[in-house]
Amino acid sequence: MAMKKENGATMADDGERRRSVIGPPTNPMVTPLLTDLYQYTMAYAYWKAGKHTERAVFDLFFRRSPFVGEYTVFGGLEECIRFIAHFKFTEDDITFIRDAMAGKCEEGFLDYLRKLDCSEVEVYAIPEGSVVFPRVPLIRVEGPVAVAQLLETTLVNLVNFASLVATNAARHRMVAGNDKLLLEFGLRRAQGPDGGISASRYCYMGGFDATSNVAAGRLFGIPLKGTHSHAFVSSFMSLDEIVDKSLRSADGTTSCEDFVSLVQKWLAKIQRTKFLSGGFGETNLSELAAFTSYALAFPTNFLALVDTYDVLRSGIPNFCAVAMALRDLGYKAMGIRLDSGDLAYLSCEARKFFQAIEKEFGVPGFGKMSITASNDLNEETLDHLNKQGHQVDAFGIGTYLVTCYAQAALGCVFKLVEINNQPRMKLSEDVSKVSIPCKKRCYRLYGKEGYALVDLMIGENEPAPKIEERILCRHPFNESKRAYVVPQRVEELFKCYWSGNSDKMREDLPSLKDVRERCMAQLKQMRPDYLRRLNPTPYKVSVSAKLYDFIHFLWLNEAPVGELH
Amino acid sequence: MAMKKENGATMADDGERRRSVIGPPTNPMVTPLLTDLYQYTMAYAYWKAGKHTERAVFDLFFRRSPFVGEYTVFGGLEECIRFIAHFKFTEDDITFIRDAMAGKCEEGFLDYLRKLDCSEVEVYAIPEGSVVFPRVPLIRVEGPVAVAQLLETTLVNLVNFASLVATNAARHRMVAGNDKLLLEFGLRRAQGPDGGISASRYCYMGGFDATSNVAAGRLFGIPLKGTHSHAFVSSFMSLDEIVDKSLRSADGTTSCEDFVSLVQKWLAKIQRTKFLSGGFGETNLSELAAFTSYALAFPTNFLALVDTYDVLRSGIPNFCAVAMALRDLGYKAMGIRLDSGDLAYLSCEARKFFQAIEKEFGVPGFGKMSITASNDLNEETLDHLNKQGHQVDAFGIGTYLVTCYAQAALGCVFKLVEINNQPRMKLSEDVSKVSIPCKKRCYRLYGKEGYALVDLMIGENEPAPKIEERILCRHPFNESKRAYVVPQRVEELFKCYWSGNSDKMREDLPSLKDVRERCMAQLKQMRPDYLRRLNPTPYKVSVSAKLYDFIHFLWLNEAPVGELH
Repeated sequence: MAMKKENGATMADDGERRRSVIGPPTNPMVTPLLTDLYQYTMAYAYWKAGKHTERAVFDLFFRRSPFVGEYTVFGGLEECIRFIAHFKFTEDDITFIRDAMAGKCEEGFLDYLRKLDCSEVEVYAIPEGSVVFPRVPLIRVEGPVAVAQLLETTLVNLVNFASLVATNAARHRMVAGNDKLLLEFGLRRAQGPDGGISASRYCYMGGFDATSNVAAGRLFGIPLKGTHSHAFVSSFMSLDEIVDKSLRSADGTTSCEDFVSLVQKWLAKIQRTKFLSGGFGETNLSELAAFTSYALAFPTNFLALVDTYDVLRSGIPNFCAVAMALRDLGYKAMGIRLDSGDLAYLSCEARKFFQAIEKEFGVPGFGKMSITASNDLNEETLDHLNKQGHQVDAFGIGTYLVTCYAQAALGCVFKLVEINNQPRMKLSEDVSKVSIPCKKRCYRLYGKEGYALVDLMIGENEPAPKIEERILCRHPFNESKRAYVVPQRVEELFKCYWSGNSDKMREDLPSLKDVRERCMAQLKQMRPDYLRRLNPTPYKVSVSAKLYDFIHFLWLNEAPVGELH
Repeated sequence: MAMKKENGATMADDGERRRSVIGPPTNPMVTPLLTDLYQYTMAYAYWKAGKHTERAVFDLFFRRSPFVGEYTVFGGLEECIRFIAHFKFTEDDITFIRDAMAGKCEEGFLDYLRKLDCSEVEVYAIPEGSVVFPRVPLIRVEGPVAVAQLLETTLVNLVNFASLVATNAARHRMVAGNDKLLLEFGLRRAQGPDGGISASRYCYMGGFDATSNVAAGRLFGIPLKGTHSHAFVSSFMSLDEIVDKSLRSADGTTSCEDFVSLVQKWLAKIQRTKFLSGGFGETNLSELAAFTSYALAFPTNFLALVDTYDVLRSGIPNFCAVAMALRDLGYKAMGIRLDSGDLAYLSCEARKFFQAIEKEFGVPGFGKMSITASNDLNEETLDHLNKQGHQVDAFGIGTYLVTCYAQAALGCVFKLVEINNQPRMKLSEDVSKVSIPCKKRCYRLYGKEGYALVDLMIGENEPAPKIEERILCRHPFNESKRAYVVPQRVEELFKCYWSGNSDKMREDLPSLKDVRERCMAQLKQMRPDYLRRLNPTPYKVSVSAKLYDFIHFLWLNEAPVGELH
């Protein structure tokens, strides 16, 4: 007996370990072949050297938060776990790998791949939707080195864009404010089909309210929004095209036989009104036909795009005529969308027009008609609109949001930190690229006011930091940066999300809605100066004194000593 | 009897129309639901108004070439046609649409959707891989307005990223030069799984030689490249880890029982060599172990990543020791990869080292050892490397290439230009956003030197431009920009790629390799000043005198006249 869960997984009724069964990756293209060729050549070289089963620990982390900011929202974990849970080669995969290795691998290796899955892998991670910082591992993968290596590219791919776009969405939310409706409209400009689908999902996670993307709505239960485009407006030529002109009233008691005439009557009334008529002469009648037709199809949620011909001279008066006609039949129009021009100015003018209608015709609430704005919006334009003053209630954001135009990639990496219980590190001429060795435990320490103070990494066997106990937190590479911290609350960051065939309990994957709520809650726990757009305060990521010493001991040990002659 | 074709399609043996059967979209997530909700609300409104079957013509085009350039490579057509060929709703889709419309649509509309496909749609397009310019339609879709509308978002999504990344690849090729090997290494940083897969495909189309992405290699037959990463190197601790030390010679006649000792002997020899030993003391032995182990697995194509510890002091001497040992057994090492530091300097130093080895030990060709460079490369860094002088043979390019970091989105749009044989246009306060009405025919006119001179759009019923006949070409919006052109060659740009159930012949979809070759050939037909990176000459896109007049007649007709009081 299996029970359906919200995120599409089913509950397995298998006695002791009542964990939900994990579904396959959302995108069927996510298979063990979605990786770099060198993962296979390396796996083969490990296998040839008899090293492939050596137990390795890899950290997945990034080195810098995107968008010149100081924080990142972690996304993509669920897809990583789905991928790991279903990691298995088909015979077709094997055949292709044999070809790809150009006959340079032994059949024994292919037999090894045939039997491979992630039953010997364990995955620890920070919960999805958390606010995260540079160098602290988001995911720790433990397992046979060859298997962990084969997972690398896919995991990094699944986390990079998810986290990037979730962060972008959170930043847009922050600048727009919590009282605005944020709609993601990016599918057409996204980087391919699932660039669009992923963007819709992770924008919702990062704080958006809805998407226009029907496929994403279906896959993830995200609320859907959308009305009509310019093409709909320009497809109409005149009011004569409307054949069925009747509209039943909202309460179903009466029927208006000629809704078109009712609209025309209202347009004339509005045009005659002194202080309104100054701004416009004849409106575009093909636009009026389109609005009327759309209202006949959707009388209960009439929202019109008003900038196909001219916003103030045509779109808004036409909209108001239809809205007032609908009102006569007991319907309440929803509002307008502006998709070009000076959005601050036009939204203010539109608001004035609506308020004038409210006053002139005594229609309470008409002045509060919803105004949606779209057209190449981004963090910066939202900020400018705020500064200028505007009357927009909802923002439809596409291109800049979903492609993360301001910074199109996040640089997550996957680094070996331990093998056969031996700590390993990668050196680099660039200190920021040096990896932190050892299997680690990670904590977030909170202060008196409830805000996070610092993230701390310690060696696996060190004692955990304790509440109200002073602990030295050191910058991993900069000797002089260190601070004593007395935490009021200590949060261990890693949870086990995949335990292979071991007996360890693992976390269930929360629903997207829960992940979204976690994200909102986490952002509230951050001191606002870490989150601000301009010159945010750097959040401190630190290591214990013991780990610090070990890093620098190993560094000296691995780096070759130069000789100058 | 069906015959397998190169691009995965099969030839249908159906008598007269011997056209290949078109496969489904490569990404199974590409379905009629991969669109904006408003396409459904509009389709419903068209249906309610009885307008849904009106014959409409939509143009898909962009308004500006990306990357501050003057040209774009058109990609994505094959996927558009696959999508159109398989456009069909499942009963699950219908159920979801009913829900998404929140009970606001009549069952008759859902019945209409149930029967819908693209049998009444015709698609004309410029061949994929062509060099294209702003405002000239890439694709023209003709069909019932509701169907064409439902296709919009998906087609635009499929073309936007494909064209953007193909253009980016072509630009990288241009700056790298034709003699360099260009490898796409972007999967891990791409915008999601098929952001990566699409990028691999369209980078190959735009002129790259290979990819690291195994899934893309399998799907599209793109050559695969890759060796090993830093993790492989740091997973080794010492030479003692290598258990099976034997290596058979390249010709199979002898076997070296202790290849490790042979490597060590060579390292000692290299270290003793006077003019080499100045630069380094002891190399890192875990790195030497990793290289040796990798060579044992891949003696015929040994390529080593040399920057895990220190390129000049450790990586290169270690590599040379292994390469010389391999040489003793008749193998030829392939080369090195540099992934950090000053690539110009390091590549020159590496070259000097190889040349010194060649001279010192009398190994012809060793100095020509291949050097691959990677690490956040882009058009600009390639240009800088060229200016500084470098010794790199192959570039591995990732993040900036596949995410199109310099400009993460192309702005293709899909505009209604005719309905019921009536030309339509969308106005805008921004002239660059005004669309060009009418069902059009498009031509490229070539001059004496074989280069393209101008693209020309004319009304469907105007006579085609003729060779050696003078024709006036006008800027569509700027009155004063016009020129007489006497073409030496006239190329009609549109071909029919989908003819629904009409009798029209349609083009077969060429293989990716053919599309790639078309792209290379087309770039050669463009005068170099249109293609250059800095201040390229604007390519002229024009309309006939007749179309010009009509545009401006319609414009005045549709725009409302203001009243100033």
